[in-house]
Amino acid sequence: MTKIAILGYGTVGSGVYEVVKKNKDVIAGKLGDEIQVKYVLDLREFEGDPVQEVLVHDVDVILNDAEVAIVCETMGGEHPAYEFTKRALESGKSVCTSNKELVEKHGPELIRIAEAHDCSYLFEASVGGGIPIIRPLRTSLAQEEILSITGILNGTTNYILTKMETEGLAFDTVLARAQEKGYAEKNPDADVLGLDACRKIAILTSLAYGKKVDFEDIVTEGITAITDVDFAYAKKMGATIKLFAKSVKKGDKYYAIVAPFIVKPENPLYAVKGVFNAILINCNMGGETMYYGKGAGKLATASAVVADVLDCARHIGKHLDIRWEDQKLAISPVDGAVRRFFVRVPLADEPRIKDIFGEVEMYTDIAAGECGFVTEEMTEAEYRDKAAGFGSVLSMIRVD
Amino acid sequence: MTKIAILGYGTVGSGVYEVVKKNKDVIAGKLGDEIQVKYVLDLREFEGDPVQEVLVHDVDVILNDAEVAIVCETMGGEHPAYEFTKRALESGKSVCTSNKELVEKHGPELIRIAEAHDCSYLFEASVGGGIPIIRPLRTSLAQEEILSITGILNGTTNYILTKMETEGLAFDTVLARAQEKGYAEKNPDADVLGLDACRKIAILTSLAYGKKVDFEDIVTEGITAITDVDFAYAKKMGATIKLFAKSVKKGDKYYAIVAPFIVKPENPLYAVKGVFNAILINCNMGGETMYYGKGAGKLATASAVVADVLDCARHIGKHLDIRWEDQKLAISPVDGAVRRFFVRVPLADEPRIKDIFGEVEMYTDIAAGECGFVTEEMTEAEYRDKAAGFGSVLSMIRVD
Repeated sequence: MTKIAILGYGTVGSGVYEVVKKNKDVIAGKLGDEIQVKYVLDLREFEGDPVQEVLVHDVDVILNDAEVAIVCETMGGEHPAYEFTKRALESGKSVCTSNKELVEKHGPELIRIAEAHDCSYLFEASVGGGIPIIRPLRTSLAQEEILSITGILNGTTNYILTKMETEGLAFDTVLARAQEKGYAEKNPDADVLGLDACRKIAILTSLAYGKKVDFEDIVTEGITAITDVDFAYAKKMGATIKLFAKSVKKGDKYYAIVAPFIVKPENPLYAVKGVFNAILINCNMGGETMYYGKGAGKLATASAVVADVLDCARHIGKHLDIRWEDQKLAISPVDGAVRRFFVRVPLADEPRIKDIFGEVEMYTDIAAGECGFVTEEMTEAEYRDKAAGFGSVLSMIRVD
Repeated sequence: MTKIAILGYGTVGSGVYEVVKKNKDVIAGKLGDEIQVKYVLDLREFEGDPVQEVLVHDVDVILNDAEVAIVCETMGGEHPAYEFTKRALESGKSVCTSNKELVEKHGPELIRIAEAHDCSYLFEASVGGGIPIIRPLRTSLAQEEILSITGILNGTTNYILTKMETEGLAFDTVLARAQEKGYAEKNPDADVLGLDACRKIAILTSLAYGKKVDFEDIVTEGITAITDVDFAYAKKMGATIKLFAKSVKKGDKYYAIVAPFIVKPENPLYAVKGVFNAILINCNMGGETMYYGKGAGKLATASAVVADVLDCARHIGKHLDIRWEDQKLAISPVDGAVRRFFVRVPLADEPRIKDIFGEVEMYTDIAAGECGFVTEEMTEAEYRDKAAGFGSVLSMIRVD
């Protein structure tokens, strides 16, 4: 019998409780051992909910109980999650978390503390919700040099873009509907501005290369500027538009960006619709693999936390190694990144396109008073210099 | 330094050698330890190839060397791979293999031997080539009740079906071209009759439920009867045709089948094209996750073997547990499986369709002298009984 505690009985925490209860027998069968929730920490009361029997309000009850081997931190936010996690690890209890913010800010330090105390700090649920991605990156791909990671890492924006594409609606209309349905927050900035995806690609890139990627170093553009006219062009190209969170290793340089991209059907990420997430990883030996599933949601996220719990339960007294040094991974300026660009300019500028950009793929008659084109490959800096030659650019979307 | 040996310097074995050499630094960085190939076993000589320095012709050199901690069995076939594997495990050496046949036939026994000798028998590469699927099933999804597994598990057939769809060609034409390009064997039976996919779904289903699934218990149909006319109907439905290897848990019953299915774009497997493979797993808590990548090929398969090597190297002296009992998992007769069916009958039978099948989705004017329809949901037995009411059925394809 392995005894665990859950810190925070919110959406994910109550999901963890549910997964452990409902799948008790499955878990015991595969693990060869039972998992029991000994405590749930929450400031609130939950009268009438069976959780009340194991509810405590004081974290010390948990931290001082030597029987508790594993703690699930599902509180979210930096404080007091950071302090509780640190103390749990220092007392030799492994911690499994869904807390992306904490992982992104303090991952390397918490892993080091876990190592020093022969326990583990695992965070599968912090990126990609229910999609196994952190563990495959750490184990199944440990023999690989990672050449690129491209993720659809935010369900809200993928839902909005999918609806804009399939129903021809404007961004604001779809966002309002998504908010009604609970697919988007009342303050949707973290999602629609790309900040959530940015934190996640920072974590994945850190794990791929074993060094710390600061999310502030990643150029981040959201989807707020994408219009139905952009989708009309994409459709003409036989493509769609996706918010990609991307990091690339090119020689000894590392690039990272979060931005909308024009995506063709040849890319397996093209088919990822609605609230689903997926991560495409390109490796120097095995080539491309992709991981797809629910990027959020109570039970999917909780399930990933419980997967970590089982991993810890299999390795009591042992540290599960995750290479993630405090040393910073230098992200090169996006200026040097090479790709193609889809550009819309006023129709009056059409005659100058070839002079400025040379060979392009032209798209006309999509919208009145304008035209669009896709450039050849060039650096972001080159693109910017050339684009400055126009009076105005109506829209630019990178092409994958 | 962890020393390993490779049994068999064929396609996969030489790939393992290459991955370990080329990614030496990456591996050392992530593992915190170096992997060194101490021996390669092969009956042949490889003059001029650096492998010659570590080449041995006698397996006893390897089995009697206490320094060798891990053995990669990349010989294929049942004998002598079985005997060599058994002896390696009995001497406490972990074995990592790509040998699907051996795993399917002797998996449970070899796992038990490994357990008794504190080492491991791992076989990530035996299903899905370079796609991490066995390890996620064993670790990331250990907390889940698996409700269904649907795989595109054979690259040759998926390549053929993709070409038939996109180029409107007949099966024989595409097969001949695939053989020219080396995407299909000269004797393509194991692929096109579904036998390869059948062995793989037998392994995955065994691991999902911890019991032994005999591949002989799985109804297996290949793709040889699929025609360009079938694809014309599929196109009309906005769908495609894929060879699915599928197992489903329904209550306390288990169903399994390998057969062509009509697949709509809503299914993430729809977008899996060409030689790529993918596995979609539906779980009771986290919902659907999908794993996508190269299902075959030297380096992709070798990379998966090396992932297992690293896992063993991290757990020297410890058994990595895989629940797979000798007890047989009863696969229920396919008669009871419920689904929709796409059926083509001679035009003369059109008036009788509604009498026999009730409500159907009709498709006419696709090919001369015939029509097609999709039934409501019913069991396979019901379908068969009803279909017997026609003089002849031109074609039947199950609908996913």
